[in-house]
Amino acid sequence: MGMLPLQSDDKSGKLFIVGTGPGGAAWMTGRAAEAIREAEYVIGNAFYLEQLGSLLEGKTVIRSSMGKEVDRARRCIDLAREHRVAMVSGGDPGVYGMAGIVLEVLERSGDAVEVEVVPGVTAACAGASLLGSPLTGDHVTLSLSDLLTPWEEIEHRLDCAFAMGVPVALYNPKSRGRPENLSRALAIALRHAAPETPVGLVRNACREGEATSVTTLGALAADTSAVDMHTVVFVGGKETFPTKNGGMLTPRGYRRKYVY
Amino acid sequence: MGMLPLQSDDKSGKLFIVGTGPGGAAWMTGRAAEAIREAEYVIGNAFYLEQLGSLLEGKTVIRSSMGKEVDRARRCIDLAREHRVAMVSGGDPGVYGMAGIVLEVLERSGDAVEVEVVPGVTAACAGASLLGSPLTGDHVTLSLSDLLTPWEEIEHRLDCAFAMGVPVALYNPKSRGRPENLSRALAIALRHAAPETPVGLVRNACREGEATSVTTLGALAADTSAVDMHTVVFVGGKETFPTKNGGMLTPRGYRRKYVY
Repeated sequence: MGMLPLQSDDKSGKLFIVGTGPGGAAWMTGRAAEAIREAEYVIGNAFYLEQLGSLLEGKTVIRSSMGKEVDRARRCIDLAREHRVAMVSGGDPGVYGMAGIVLEVLERSGDAVEVEVVPGVTAACAGASLLGSPLTGDHVTLSLSDLLTPWEEIEHRLDCAFAMGVPVALYNPKSRGRPENLSRALAIALRHAAPETPVGLVRNACREGEATSVTTLGALAADTSAVDMHTVVFVGGKETFPTKNGGMLTPRGYRRKYVY
Repeated sequence: MGMLPLQSDDKSGKLFIVGTGPGGAAWMTGRAAEAIREAEYVIGNAFYLEQLGSLLEGKTVIRSSMGKEVDRARRCIDLAREHRVAMVSGGDPGVYGMAGIVLEVLERSGDAVEVEVVPGVTAACAGASLLGSPLTGDHVTLSLSDLLTPWEEIEHRLDCAFAMGVPVALYNPKSRGRPENLSRALAIALRHAAPETPVGLVRNACREGEATSVTTLGALAADTSAVDMHTVVFVGGKETFPTKNGGMLTPRGYRRKYVY
């Protein structure tokens, strides 16, 4: 046999920012798995790395901790000059994931590194699938974490969001050290929506510890103890109703159009 | 060999409402592929069925056309009383997909059929991944189609959405026969946002005919001819900026928190 051809692709660096979806490898896309297989280095939060199982075999794995996103972004970019690097991010990397910060650090550094963002299933879509169809169409996605956004700005966004009358998915409903953020948000919701509005709670969608429940806006505002940091809270819109099987459903207007 | 054990699971019906993601099978999750493999019947819009390729081998395939969603939902439910049925839906079935209407028809019929909604990657997440990170965190998802929602209601939602100051992903920016909906929406956006606000256009994300571009709110409002029914329009938020590589980026506030 002759020499292997020189494959320039094998030598060039590339950074994949990979959405691993809500939990186990079954909720990852084929493209996400392929990007991780192609990588020499896999970097990410220990929690998300754990879900990858045998995909990590033969890789150099770099575990980083929450709250060190800027350092992690810099390290990825440095490595990706000469290596294939997969930065993994739970859910979709473009929604409360690592794509924003990595691309921001890259943009400001002026470096030229090839990047591919691999989309994933968000925690909101995963959680919604377990409740039935709480979002269905138009909706708002908001985080209650005031680590990176001033609380006054979050309150403004909440007020506009609930004024729309469409379902709202709340991420990070209880930040560490700020358990009252959720109560404040629900008080804003109650300015626009009835206390009977259905509210769905989904913890750990599509992974160990999965749990769902449906309550009402009024009941949750009175007692938020069922909600923790790992919960996505789905506040229904004007047309949302609870279903007989314990889920919730926002109709999309077919009934308005077709009498059935 | 003895008789095969009676497997009650093989006999019982089940309806999977499966998100096939933005395009080719590579952007589908493992769970979505598994649900289709398990099904005897696969039903869906011809466009989405075509992307499934060899996954359809050995299945009874039922192609249905756009605009017949209520009939399609009824047919699925009838079949799923005794058969394994996969209703496929592009993107995520819970966001402008088939989950809402199927579950609504089921709820109102009072039938007991086992249902599993399998989440998928949305067109918004797929399109965003091609632009860099236009959404990043808080954002709004709105459709400009007035087939199922009255236009006055859409205008109200748009006004609240753009008042938030966060990125807005617009689906169905040009309904058949209503090409002016996008111009009206952009006029509402200009009440709240500067004409220089970056706007990204993504056609056919992750499938044949993929194309992206970034323009500004002012320029698109003056000429919407680059947008068609298959485009998702990403209107940036207050902090969104265009990137050197032709994409767009919404920072998430790390720079506010960590000086770097």
